[in-house]
This record gives sequence, structure tokens and C-alpha cells, in this order.
Amino acid sequence: MAYCATSHTPHISPKWSSSPRNALIQSRNRFTVVPIRFPPNIPPNVLKFDRIRSPIRASSAQLMEQNLGSRVPTIVDVDLGNRSYPIYIGSGLLDQPHLLQRHVHGKRVLVVTNTTVAPLYLDKVVSALTDGNSSVSVESVILPDGEKYKNMETLMKVFDKAIESRFDRRTTFVALGGGVIGDMCGFAAAAFLRGVNFIQIPTTVMAQVDSSVGGKTGINHPLGKNLIGAFYQPQCVLVDTDTLHTLPDRELASGIAEVVKYGLIRDAEFFEWQEKNMNALLARDANALAYAIKRSCENKAEVVSLDEKESGLRATLNLGHTFGHAIEAGFGYGQWLHGEAVAAGTVMAVDMSHRLGWIDESIVKRVYDILLAANLPIGPPECMTVEMFKSYMAVDKKVADGLLRLILLKGPLGNCVFTGDYDRKALDETLHAFCKS
Amino acid sequence: MAYCATSHTPHISPKWSSSPRNALIQSRNRFTVVPIRFPPNIPPNVLKFDRIRSPIRASSAQLMEQNLGSRVPTIVDVDLGNRSYPIYIGSGLLDQPHLLQRHVHGKRVLVVTNTTVAPLYLDKVVSALTDGNSSVSVESVILPDGEKYKNMETLMKVFDKAIESRFDRRTTFVALGGGVIGDMCGFAAAAFLRGVNFIQIPTTVMAQVDSSVGGKTGINHPLGKNLIGAFYQPQCVLVDTDTLHTLPDRELASGIAEVVKYGLIRDAEFFEWQEKNMNALLARDANALAYAIKRSCENKAEVVSLDEKESGLRATLNLGHTFGHAIEAGFGYGQWLHGEAVAAGTVMAVDMSHRLGWIDESIVKRVYDILLAANLPIGPPECMTVEMFKSYMAVDKKVADGLLRLILLKGPLGNCVFTGDYDRKALDETLHAFCKS
Repeated sequence: MAYCATSHTPHISPKWSSSPRNALIQSRNRFTVVPIRFPPNIPPNVLKFDRIRSPIRASSAQLMEQNLGSRVPTIVDVDLGNRSYPIYIGSGLLDQPHLLQRHVHGKRVLVVTNTTVAPLYLDKVVSALTDGNSSVSVESVILPDGEKYKNMETLMKVFDKAIESRFDRRTTFVALGGGVIGDMCGFAAAAFLRGVNFIQIPTTVMAQVDSSVGGKTGINHPLGKNLIGAFYQPQCVLVDTDTLHTLPDRELASGIAEVVKYGLIRDAEFFEWQEKNMNALLARDANALAYAIKRSCENKAEVVSLDEKESGLRATLNLGHTFGHAIEAGFGYGQWLHGEAVAAGTVMAVDMSHRLGWIDESIVKRVYDILLAANLPIGPPECMTVEMFKSYMAVDKKVADGLLRLILLKGPLGNCVFTGDYDRKALDETLHAFCKS
Repeated sequence: MAYCATSHTPHISPKWSSSPRNALIQSRNRFTVVPIRFPPNIPPNVLKFDRIRSPIRASSAQLMEQNLGSRVPTIVDVDLGNRSYPIYIGSGLLDQPHLLQRHVHGKRVLVVTNTTVAPLYLDKVVSALTDGNSSVSVESVILPDGEKYKNMETLMKVFDKAIESRFDRRTTFVALGGGVIGDMCGFAAAAFLRGVNFIQIPTTVMAQVDSSVGGKTGINHPLGKNLIGAFYQPQCVLVDTDTLHTLPDRELASGIAEVVKYGLIRDAEFFEWQEKNMNALLARDANALAYAIKRSCENKAEVVSLDEKESGLRATLNLGHTFGHAIEAGFGYGQWLHGEAVAAGTVMAVDMSHRLGWIDESIVKRVYDILLAANLPIGPPECMTVEMFKSYMAVDKKVADGLLRLILLKGPLGNCVFTGDYDRKALDETLHAFCKS
């Protein structure tokens, strides 16, 4: 698989070569619960995010005993007061119409999907929306597939369809597809008539573990990723793990990059589980996938509940994303999948954390190893230059009053900081280590 | 002044001819205070909105004793919990930098204005933002002037400017202009990086009494008005009444259409004041204008506080707007000013209310008289057909599950209903009475 137009080999930093999977680390961290709520305004210059854990999380061993691939959905709640909603996770959920129908408002539904997903699942979703419920009518808009279409021009096709079809405020938009569809459909729902209800049916690991949860919606601008959008929460997220049967390997690996992220920023135990179970995930073991999705959603739900509008804590979910977004915009949207860019960006953030002396070398090695095991790139495409990185990173949403803030690892595995207080030299060194010019 | 491409005479329904201003009605209604809060969901089929009054409102006589044109701002608060904000109203407010500066977040400001307003007030606003505050830098984007530019293409110019200038989340957008600028700048602020702060500096009566207050933002779609947007509240609204010195007469009259609306839907005493003071308003008497703006903002602030997201009560602010939006879209955006279309739409809504037997003929006559006195049209342009009205009204945001709900007057002056429960025959009769075909 080509990760770069100019190279068929993922860029590997000379410092680290590919190596066999790292031995499992047996130690289990125990965390105390620190109930915190971040202020609505910009956080202090440095926020350290460790030891914030839900008291209700079961151990991975306990959870694996459940048959998470069963048709009884696992439910993860996103607690946002009167905008709270459930995430249903399980196999065969699209064959259970009541799950969707209870969240449909009004009599008309617009399914937003793309040319790849529509032939696979659109009929199934229409059935799930209408079986035993003839009063609901469903229309659909099928967009071209790919990150490069996540723009205003494509978004207008959703508005055109909704307005031409005379949809009113009492309608429900349904996002059926990956992260691009979810982000665009969500933003369309936020802006159509100043807001209609919507439901997420994510069909990629990337969307199931990350982008469908938490209400971030939006589109890209030629100068940067997700620069135009809204915080807008869905009525529910329905993750039917059966939809992963048709997911290409490259998309599967892309989603795993976000799974790895949760482990690194706040869940060392989950990271260790991933080190043991990466082969099962890549082999699409139903239980392993369902567990990884559930635990990822739990992590995300907890973070979003504490900091919906990204005042501080939520920014940590963007580990590797500032570098990654620069790759996506600089290399051309859609050249790399989002998770591929995030994987490379994570390696860069980890490299920088190490240069700052904030983490042990062993963590750096484990990150390389797990991403290589997941068939993900561990460096940017060769076409990316230091100047390209600097230029695209300057428009990142985490810049505040001109200061670029980054998510960096600090301390033992599972701990990170969101900070603008770092030595610029380390950033420069990292960029030069990963770029030829 | 031409109101229609095909006619230089405002269309006057044969039933009513222009007549001298109606005699002042001396009776003063006294209202009881009914504290209500509307539910978040769609209201019952009929909601009747009368006798909802603020206990703190002074009588018009008391208010007129104050010098409302003075340089000490009158402040009207919009009570929305942690999104509450002040409306400052007065003369010379742009010469008082502290009023604006206390609401600026971050160090960078983007002023969004148009080619008409920029030469008049942009320098003054930049001074107000920066005087004694050298740490703030201001940039501006100057859009073409007019309703026909209130679209996605123009909106993208704001995003382009903000992104090219590397504005981050800690910036403030300032809307300097009329309703079109306020709506577009507000929506841009809502969507840029998923939300930055913004300030409204309205420079037309229309924007000062209505569109700048309450957080409705958005753009038009070729098929209908304001169909894409967001509810997004500003940090403050600053109404410097001196900006009205440069307002064309036609724009002044357009704004008065919304002033008349407040009287009709909920404030009979204010309507009676307008009947007495229309000449003073048209002559730009500073006290009369300041009072009309203040009382309009009080009415709007009260409604918005009770029903921010337009579950019910807020819809009553759209008296005449469903017919009016059809005129704007059907006749071509910008052919008529918004208030001109609303005036014609108000006459149609009042005509329909009378056909339904819901109001006395005397109210119909008073509406005609006051709009004629304000040099506003009292019927749609001749090019509008019944079918055009029906087609455009079908995409109105107040349609719910296919049912068109309208704001109609019912009962004594100052009372209205928001309802889908009316005889369709009356709507048909009204459309045929005002359209040639």
C-alpha cells in the first residue's frame, strides 16, 4: 500500500527500525477518581490530564467475559444534561428497528450517505427506519466518497436536497457512513433551519470509536481541516459492528490509530490490552472489535461529558492530530486516510515529548511497535516539508492568541498534557527529524 | 419610489383606500403578568400569545421624559442565563471605547461590514476597538451590500479572510451594518472553528430593533430565506443611534415595519404611541427613534428570553414574515427591502385574520393607515402569483409535518396566535385578493 505519492514505503525514522511486537507489559495501574469540571473559558497555559478515570469502568478481563458481539446492544451514555444520548454498540443492531425509531423525530427522515456505503447498507437502514412504522417517509442524498469532498460544495448538496424536498424542522437527518459523512451530515443538521435532529450510524472503525461521538461536526477549508462547523449533538449513535465486515483493511487500520490514542492519553490498561490483542483486531475478531469500540466510546464519552466545547481536557483527544491535520491538508485531502495521518502525527508528538524529556524511551518504542503492528505509517509522507508543517499548524484550532498548543505525553504511559509551554527547539528538531527539507 | 418592477404604485387592496391618519385611541390597556415558559418541543397546534408582559416596563409617557438620545447608554438586557448580554442604546456610543472593548475576547478582531457602511463607520469602529488598547489588532472584510449577497458564496469570503489571517478561537467578530451583515457575520462566528465570540453594531433601524437581537443568524438559499443558519448569541449589541443620520429614507421606513409588528403582536400601547409619533420617527427625531428602538428591543428581549429556540412564542415575531419571505424570494432577493416585504406580508396576515373573523375591521384599517403613513407598501408586488406564494411558503421554517403554521392577529389590538388551525379557505381568499393570478 502506498502511503505517499513519492514513496511506497512508510517513512521510518532512522532512530527506530521496525521490530517484533513488544512483549506484553503485565503491570496494571490503578487510578483514583478526581471529579473535575473545566471552566468555560480558555484553560491555563498548561493543563495536565492524568488520573481522571470513571469509577464504573470494569477491568478489561471482566468485560471480555461478556459476549460483546451479541445482538443485545451494549449502551454507553454520553452525559450532557438535557442533550445526553446513548451509543448502542453490538452486532445485528440494524435488524432491530425499535433502536432507531425511538430516536426519530417527526415523520420525515433524510439519510445522508455516500456512493460506497449506499449500495451496502442504505436499504437496510431504510427498512430499520420504516418497518412497522409506515407513517415515516425516508429520502436520501448520496454524496461522493472521500475526505476531499468534505467541503462547502458537497455540503450544499445536502441543503439542496432537504430544501427541494421541503423538509421542515420536525425531520431527522441520519448520517450513514464514516467520519466524513458523519461530520457533514451533523453540520448540515446543525445549520438546516438553524437545527434539526440527527442520528449517527457510523460504518467505519474511525467513526465508531471517535468521530460519531461527541458532537463535533464540520467541513474542511482548503487551508485547513474542520475549520468550519458546529458542536451539535446527535439523538443517538448506533454502532452495528456487522458493518465492519465490508470495511477495507486500510480503513480498519486507520480507525485503530484512534483506538491507540485513547490508550496513550488516558488509559494505559487499554493500551496494554491493545498490545496483546492487535492481531485479533486486525483479524476482525468480533469480540475484540466490540470491546475496543466500547472502551474507546467510554473514554470519549467521559471526556466529552467533562468538556463538551473543548475548553481544555477535550483537546487531549487530538493527540497527533495537529501534525496529522497538516499532513492531510498539505499532502491533499484523501491522499492518506485520517487515521493514517494521525498515526504519523502521533509518532511525531511522541518523538517531541521524548525530546523534551517528558517520557521514557520505552514509551516511544512501544508507540512505534503498536502502530507498525497495525500496519500504520510511523512518519509523514516524504513530500511534507518543515515549512509546510509550520504553515498548516499555524491555522490549527488549538492556536490561542498566536501560541500553538499541543497535546504531548508526559509521565508514565497513559498521561498527557495540553500545553503551549514547551521548548520551540524540540518542535523544530522533531519537524527536521521527520522531514527531508 | 417603485415597490415593484411592474408598478410604481403600491398595491392597495380595493377594500381599503388610503385615508388620513387614524385618531389616537386614548384608552390604555393594563396587563397582568403571566409568568410562562414554553416547552422545548413543538407547541400545541394553537398557541395564543396575549397578556404576556414584563412587570418592569415603564409607561411610554414615563420613558419619554428621559432623554433617550443622550450619550449615557440605555441598557436592555437579554436574559439567557450564562449567554445573557446587554443591548446598549444611545447617541455617540461609538465614541465610548470602553463599551465595546469590555466585550472583546482575545487580541484580534475581524470587522465584517459592507461597501456602503465601511466608508461611513469602519474607521470609527476601529478606533473604538483600539483607542487606549494597543494590544488589539483589527482586520476587516468588506462584503458587497444587499440581500442578494446573503448567500454561501459571500459567507465563504468571511471564512477565507479569517483563515488566511490565521484567526484563532480567541478572536472576536464584529458585525457592522444592517441585518444582512449581522446575520452573515453571526453565522460565520457560529461556524468558524465551531464558534468564536461576536458583537453586533447594527446601523439600520431594521437591525437595531430586530435582527441584531436574539441570536438568529443565517443565510438565504435560492429557494427560501434564512434556511441555513444557527441560533448564536452575541456578546453585546451596540446601537449608536447617530448611525441613523446616514440611513436612506427607504431603509428607515423598512425598519419601522418591524416596530409596527411589536405593537400588533403584543404591545397595543406601543402601537398607539406609534400612531401618534410616526411623523417624528420619519423626521428622525432623536428621542422618538431612541424610544422606538428601546421599546422594540425590550419586547424582543422578553420574547427571546422566554423562547430562545422558537418553540412557540418566538415565532410570533414573524408576523407577516411568511408572506414577506415569499415576496423576497419570489420577487428576487434585494428587489424589496426586508421591511417592505414584511409590511406587505403584515397586511396580508391581518386581512386573513379578519376573514377568519378573529379581529375587528378597525384593526385592519389602523394597520393600513400606519403602514401608509410610514411610506410602506400595503400589498405584494404585482408579479407575485398565488402559486408563487404557495410554493415559497411551503418551505417556511414554521411548517411542521407538512402543516403551514402562521402568526395571525386574534382578539383586541396587541394579541396574536401562532397556529396551523385555521380555515384554508381564508388563506386562499387572502392570496387571491392580493394577487392578480
